[in-house]
Amino acid sequence: MRMEKARTKHKIGMPPGSLVYTGRSRSDRPVITLFEYGPEGYSERKMADIGECAREAKADGVRWINIDGLNDTSLLERIGREFGIHPLVIEDVLNTSQRPKTEHHESHIFIVLRMIYPSKDGGEVESEQVSIILGEGYILSFQERRGDVFDPIRDRIRTGKGRVRSLGSDYLAYCLMDSIVDSYFLVIENLGEKVESIEDEVIERPERGTVQAIHELKRQLITMRRSTWPLRESVSSLYRESSGMVKDETKLYFRDLYDHTIQVIDSIESHRDITSSMLDIYLSSVSNRMNEVMKVLTIIATIFIPLTFIAGIYGMNFDPDYSPFNMPELRWYFGYPLALTLMAAIPLVMLIYFRKRKWI
Amino acid sequence: MRMEKARTKHKIGMPPGSLVYTGRSRSDRPVITLFEYGPEGYSERKMADIGECAREAKADGVRWINIDGLNDTSLLERIGREFGIHPLVIEDVLNTSQRPKTEHHESHIFIVLRMIYPSKDGGEVESEQVSIILGEGYILSFQERRGDVFDPIRDRIRTGKGRVRSLGSDYLAYCLMDSIVDSYFLVIENLGEKVESIEDEVIERPERGTVQAIHELKRQLITMRRSTWPLRESVSSLYRESSGMVKDETKLYFRDLYDHTIQVIDSIESHRDITSSMLDIYLSSVSNRMNEVMKVLTIIATIFIPLTFIAGIYGMNFDPDYSPFNMPELRWYFGYPLALTLMAAIPLVMLIYFRKRKWI
Amino acid sequence: MRMEKARTKHKIGMPPGSLVYTGRSRSDRPVITLFEYGPEGYSERKMADIGECAREAKADGVRWINIDGLNDTSLLERIGREFGIHPLVIEDVLNTSQRPKTEHHESHIFIVLRMIYPSKDGGEVESEQVSIILGEGYILSFQERRGDVFDPIRDRIRTGKGRVRSLGSDYLAYCLMDSIVDSYFLVIENLGEKVESIEDEVIERPERGTVQAIHELKRQLITMRRSTWPLRESVSSLYRESSGMVKDETKLYFRDLYDHTIQVIDSIESHRDITSSMLDIYLSSVSNRMNEVMKVLTIIATIFIPLTFIAGIYGMNFDPDYSPFNMPELRWYFGYPLALTLMAAIPLVMLIYFRKRKWI
Amino acid sequence: MRMEKARTKHKIGMPPGSLVYTGRSRSDRPVITLFEYGPEGYSERKMADIGECAREAKADGVRWINIDGLNDTSLLERIGREFGIHPLVIEDVLNTSQRPKTEHHESHIFIVLRMIYPSKDGGEVESEQVSIILGEGYILSFQERRGDVFDPIRDRIRTGKGRVRSLGSDYLAYCLMDSIVDSYFLVIENLGEKVESIEDEVIERPERGTVQAIHELKRQLITMRRSTWPLRESVSSLYRESSGMVKDETKLYFRDLYDHTIQVIDSIESHRDITSSMLDIYLSSVSNRMNEVMKVLTIIATIFIPLTFIAGIYGMNFDPDYSPFNMPELRWYFGYPLALTLMAAIPLVMLIYFRKRKWI
Amino acid sequence: MRMEKARTKHKIGMPPGSLVYTGRSRSDRPVITLFEYGPEGYSERKMADIGECAREAKADGVRWINIDGLNDTSLLERIGREFGIHPLVIEDVLNTSQRPKTEHHESHIFIVLRMIYPSKDGGEVESEQVSIILGEGYILSFQERRGDVFDPIRDRIRTGKGRVRSLGSDYLAYCLMDSIVDSYFLVIENLGEKVESIEDEVIERPERGTVQAIHELKRQLITMRRSTWPLRESVSSLYRESSGMVKDETKLYFRDLYDHTIQVIDSIESHRDITSSMLDIYLSSVSNRMNEVMKVLTIIATIFIPLTFIAGIYGMNFDPDYSPFNMPELRWYFGYPLALTLMAAIPLVMLIYFRKRKWI
Repeated sequence: MRMEKARTKHKIGMPPGSLVYTGRSRSDRPVITLFEYGPEGYSERKMADIGECAREAKADGVRWINIDGLNDTSLLERIGREFGIHPLVIEDVLNTSQRPKTEHHESHIFIVLRMIYPSKDGGEVESEQVSIILGEGYILSFQERRGDVFDPIRDRIRTGKGRVRSLGSDYLAYCLMDSIVDSYFLVIENLGEKVESIEDEVIERPERGTVQAIHELKRQLITMRRSTWPLRESVSSLYRESSGMVKDETKLYFRDLYDHTIQVIDSIESHRDITSSMLDIYLSSVSNRMNEVMKVLTIIATIFIPLTFIAGIYGMNFDPDYSPFNMPELRWYFGYPLALTLMAAIPLVMLIYFRKRKWI
Repeated sequence: MRMEKARTKHKIGMPPGSLVYTGRSRSDRPVITLFEYGPEGYSERKMADIGECAREAKADGVRWINIDGLNDTSLLERIGREFGIHPLVIEDVLNTSQRPKTEHHESHIFIVLRMIYPSKDGGEVESEQVSIILGEGYILSFQERRGDVFDPIRDRIRTGKGRVRSLGSDYLAYCLMDSIVDSYFLVIENLGEKVESIEDEVIERPERGTVQAIHELKRQLITMRRSTWPLRESVSSLYRESSGMVKDETKLYFRDLYDHTIQVIDSIESHRDITSSMLDIYLSSVSNRMNEVMKVLTIIATIFIPLTFIAGIYGMNFDPDYSPFNMPELRWYFGYPLALTLMAAIPLVMLIYFRKRKWI
Repeated sequence: MRMEKARTKHKIGMPPGSLVYTGRSRSDRPVITLFEYGPEGYSERKMADIGECAREAKADGVRWINIDGLNDTSLLERIGREFGIHPLVIEDVLNTSQRPKTEHHESHIFIVLRMIYPSKDGGEVESEQVSIILGEGYILSFQERRGDVFDPIRDRIRTGKGRVRSLGSDYLAYCLMDSIVDSYFLVIENLGEKVESIEDEVIERPERGTVQAIHELKRQLITMRRSTWPLRESVSSLYRESSGMVKDETKLYFRDLYDHTIQVIDSIESHRDITSSMLDIYLSSVSNRMNEVMKVLTIIATIFIPLTFIAGIYGMNFDPDYSPFNMPELRWYFGYPLALTLMAAIPLVMLIYFRKRKWI
Repeated sequence: MRMEKARTKHKIGMPPGSLVYTGRSRSDRPVITLFEYGPEGYSERKMADIGECAREAKADGVRWINIDGLNDTSLLERIGREFGIHPLVIEDVLNTSQRPKTEHHESHIFIVLRMIYPSKDGGEVESEQVSIILGEGYILSFQERRGDVFDPIRDRIRTGKGRVRSLGSDYLAYCLMDSIVDSYFLVIENLGEKVESIEDEVIERPERGTVQAIHELKRQLITMRRSTWPLRESVSSLYRESSGMVKDETKLYFRDLYDHTIQVIDSIESHRDITSSMLDIYLSSVSNRMNEVMKVLTIIATIFIPLTFIAGIYGMNFDPDYSPFNMPELRWYFGYPLALTLMAAIPLVMLIYFRKRKWI
Repeated sequence: MRMEKARTKHKIGMPPGSLVYTGRSRSDRPVITLFEYGPEGYSERKMADIGECAREAKADGVRWINIDGLNDTSLLERIGREFGIHPLVIEDVLNTSQRPKTEHHESHIFIVLRMIYPSKDGGEVESEQVSIILGEGYILSFQERRGDVFDPIRDRIRTGKGRVRSLGSDYLAYCLMDSIVDSYFLVIENLGEKVESIEDEVIERPERGTVQAIHELKRQLITMRRSTWPLRESVSSLYRESSGMVKDETKLYFRDLYDHTIQVIDSIESHRDITSSMLDIYLSSVSNRMNEVMKVLTIIATIFIPLTFIAGIYGMNFDPDYSPFNMPELRWYFGYPLALTLMAAIPLVMLIYFRKRKWI
């Protein structure tokens, strides 16, 4: 979730279009999968190199080339050359700290999104850049790591369920983006549950850790926001575009996707509002608790301090033998009972006073 | 009020347009009511299936088909086919966590609203999605549960009161939307009373529960906001639309509805401002109370601690028999009275000091 | 100041255009005043019914019909019919919780404003809806109560002072609106004085009531804001309108009015900023005071607690007769003076320590 | 700095265009200065009345008529008549609580600015309205008081330095506005120094007065904001205007002025951000200090209270003669040393505990 | 980082276009470097005066004239004259407190940026103004100090790496701006690390200095914001410009640069959000700590104060010889053990009470 760290020192001063992969998953070899489908059927292949894809004749159907793993920059360079993609676009595919965006080029549309999923150890949400290049009759999709988020779409292509096989590459682009936005709902649902559980905690038993949990939540919402706000513009530019790359029929779907994106943003903003409010409750609850502690101390102290003083008086050693004024009460017949009575009276008066002040 | 929970896991990866009902009211069988009316008269029927509606010839009047209960997805699919409605629209009708919106399709306008009403147990406000499809000569309205919010409109159609029977389906759409926005005023009135009662509480006798009440209020206002802000755009798109589906005469009514929506939003924003301010008062009131408690403790302690010390002095056992310096005052004739006088003087000095400092 | 309460339950479900007066001043009978004037002269009449006005031939001059009191809905219905005003407009005149707005109709412009004046008992500001219908050659103005805010304009018409008699009904509309906006300055001036007095209070002698005064101020500013922000748009739509109802010459005046409105809004925003800042000062001042109280307690307690302990030591009853180790100092020749010296030394050390820490 | 006070009661109800001076400098008689210049030379005159100016033939050069002091309303009325200026403009010149604005009239442009300068006694900033009327070949400038802010421009005209004599009246208007905006930098510099000194104070030795200083700063920044934000729009309307009153060559200068205005606004916003942050530091510093005081009290109290209790035990008077259980330790050989040892052990344990908790 | 200080008193009142250098690096003599390059080769020269540059014939290639050091105003005046640059532009080059901006002039585009780098002593970030004038076939770049930020570009020209030698002056302008924006990432990375380290500090061991560190961070983010927000508009005006000065091919690069700028702004805003949240954590952590201290005090005090009182009772000197009521328990056989038992019971009761309240 540290996007700002990706673009590091070794890139500064390099000529633009220099292909340097800035992500973290460096070990995996890239895996290329080619799906070719049309209304009549489909074929599916794992491939060694991109060259084979480009060599194939342009079918009537759709070719979907998915690349998992970005650490082979020369492969990406070749892809760029074969499909006529500008080096700056390839640079953006490699530079995995992009904001979501949609760029309309002459022969293709370049879409960057961020996939968000809760990390396995239950901690922070993690994000990964997914790049999609939508061309006439083909889709290139790039992921940093092998994920399974696109598996349901693969299944749909295989089984021919839904309309995916009868529509073009623009519809496939929509499907890919929709499955990513769908995954946001999962993360938001998780966050929503966290918000509620922290809310209960903050109201019923606020602890030291609560404020850190709230802060953690805030951070995650900030990250979510960063990934989703630009997405809105990115999607809306797809359903409003006029180059003909996206067909009118598919635009309806992009508008639907836009609605989902707005819904995601809406939820994030609501969670932010509630989270801000929670910190106020936490602080007021800490203050209240302090108040309560202080009250107990004050009640105990104000009751016993005067009593102790009276006991102190009669513990003085003025000598009654030397003067009739020197503590004659020490030798009175009812001296001690009177002193005890006085001592009993003081807390009574105090308690009545406290009750009147509504402290106890 | 947990909109974000509706779109759940089982939907992810499904092809778009998959009809899955995401709401909670699963038990009721859908109820279809058909109203057919025109300037001359009206007919009203409960129906078993939608097929009958569609089979009827297009009358000169207006057909209003109201569906209560959304758990029969196949029924909705049939409705969609019969009336030529895009599967994505039917999907949105079923997916009951939509934001309010207005979509202009070729043969109809699709409107999503949220009805808000205070829950019966006096707790949170609840919301329910109402979808309206406005076509030439017909209205389809979808509710999750059987409600009575549309009953006054039914009465007006039955009795022919007002202009509803002499105007078209666009005016009926306005009536439905107006009755929903009207219900917002009720909820806002309730909230307004709550705001005032909490305001009084916060000023006169703030308690631990007050801050939770404020938080609860904030949450409800956040939910209200989420339902009403997009409504504004949705209504304004109706009175500015140019396809002819909404007649010029009816646009006046939609502008009026727009004014009401703005009024609702305005009230919500005012309540939000006041609610934010209330938390500040609460905190300052807690601080003030703490201050008061501290002052009592300080006054009692600073008066009695020196006194107790003096009593402690004369409680020491230095033996006057061994030295003339060893506490000769214990044997003075006026020793004890002098000690008491000293003890009486100290609180006087203290009280004068406190008064000068304006503490008491 | 409870705008949100006006539109109540009994209206929900009624057909739009139903005329129900929602304000509070129900007892007064409406009073109709007709002013007819032109460059040559003027006539002034109190009238029993509106019919008379409408029956009169259209003079070359301007007719100003002012209605004080809105509880006779049938009268307003008749006015609507006679002047060809849409029932929705008449409904808005009666519904006295409108936001300020300007509606451009075919034959007239409908303007809603809110008059604001300090309530007589010095408490909250009060607001009242004033509706103005500007038609070709006539002005209809509606007030809830008989007020005197328009008296100076009446005087100007009577005496022919200024340009009012030589200009048309649009200029009269401007005069009415200007006199209402002028009254805002009065209220703002009052608020400004309150802001300053609370500011002084908060800095010099903050009390419990101060925070409530700040809250009260905030509420009033929120109300003011609600009345003035929409006014801005309303006035600007008048000086930018192009139907010819407002003459170019008069537009200059409306622009001037617009400037005044902006000035009012500006002042309100400044007051809001300062009011927000005041609460911070209040809180910091409460904290400071607490700090001071705590310091006194701490100084007294830390000085006397060790002293009392020493006195306690020598108040122990270990018997020097049984052992040479048992408190031999009790029988030393300089025992008591030494103890007193020790006791005098401790506060000195403490005070030096406190001074070093800058506490006293 | 109390703009809101200017438009007072005696103006309400007056016909618009009524000339009433609302400023404070009432004693000075207005001073009229006429500068006439062109590329070849210049003449400079103090004048008794405006009539003389208007009578002069229109030269090829520029006439700059500067009026210091606004309390002679009849003079201003005459100026308005002679130069064909609308009474509303003259009213705005006199009403010295205008927001900065630019009004484009047919024969002239009317510009209102506020000059800001630190008051002589080092307290609040003060502001004064300067009005400029830019016509073909002439400039009218109005100041409330005789100031010296325009002196450098006068010098430039006299000496012919710079391009002022070779360019038209629009360039002179620019010079006047530029000198006013320049004076803002001075005030901002002062404020910047204040910000820094309060920042140091708040971090190193926050006092009671600090929070008032911060509040004072905030107030001044609010006033500055009010004078500068509208200025931005006002200046930008000059460099974008298309009537030909401002020549293309001069527009470059106005764009430069616009940049300066943005710079001023930028600085104000930065100062506001920093000032807000300072209050947070102040509050946290007050809290910290309280914490420290509390710690000392707690340490002293928790060490000595148990000790005093032990001393109290052995100060009890149970009589060892009556029972072997009655305080036999009072007669032990090492009773007193043992008690002292116990008393020495307790603070040691306490101090270790406090150290472990990182309190000391 | 004190931009507001640059435009100082001695400039006020000067004619516009007066060339005064307002920066701080006054000692260095300006260094002029001329790079001349084209697809075929390049030449590089240090020059004494600008005259030589202008005298050279317009080659087919690109001339890049870099000026380090701005304190020779007459040199800049000559440059302005030679290249036909408006004096106001030269003034802006010298006035080193400009906001980033792009000005489109007839024969050239004037770009102002701010370079940001962490100061050498690890303290605040520092900023320096860099001005670029992009003309047909030439670039003028002005720096306050000799820096090495452009060195990689020089290397690329020398070695012919990348496309720099085959593209025009607009591409060179892009390279210069890109290298500056790249340097922002460095500073943001530093800030990001600081944010994280303060975050850890605030959660684990908040100290007095923490709040100052947060404030320092805020200040730096405010400065960063001021430099980057206007940059966004400045860059976007370059890729949207239509004069032909920037070729279509290069616009792609400027769009890429725009994306980077947005990314920088995004990071700054995220850091701001997190920084704001951190202060809340700090304050709540201070409150928590206070609470803890108070609890210890309260527990110790409430346990021992009653005990001390009981010890005080039996330290009274009522004389049992004078009355059977006078403290007979002092002579009971089990008097002392009973008293000790009572004293042991009280803390037990207290501890059970505290445990029930969840205090310990």
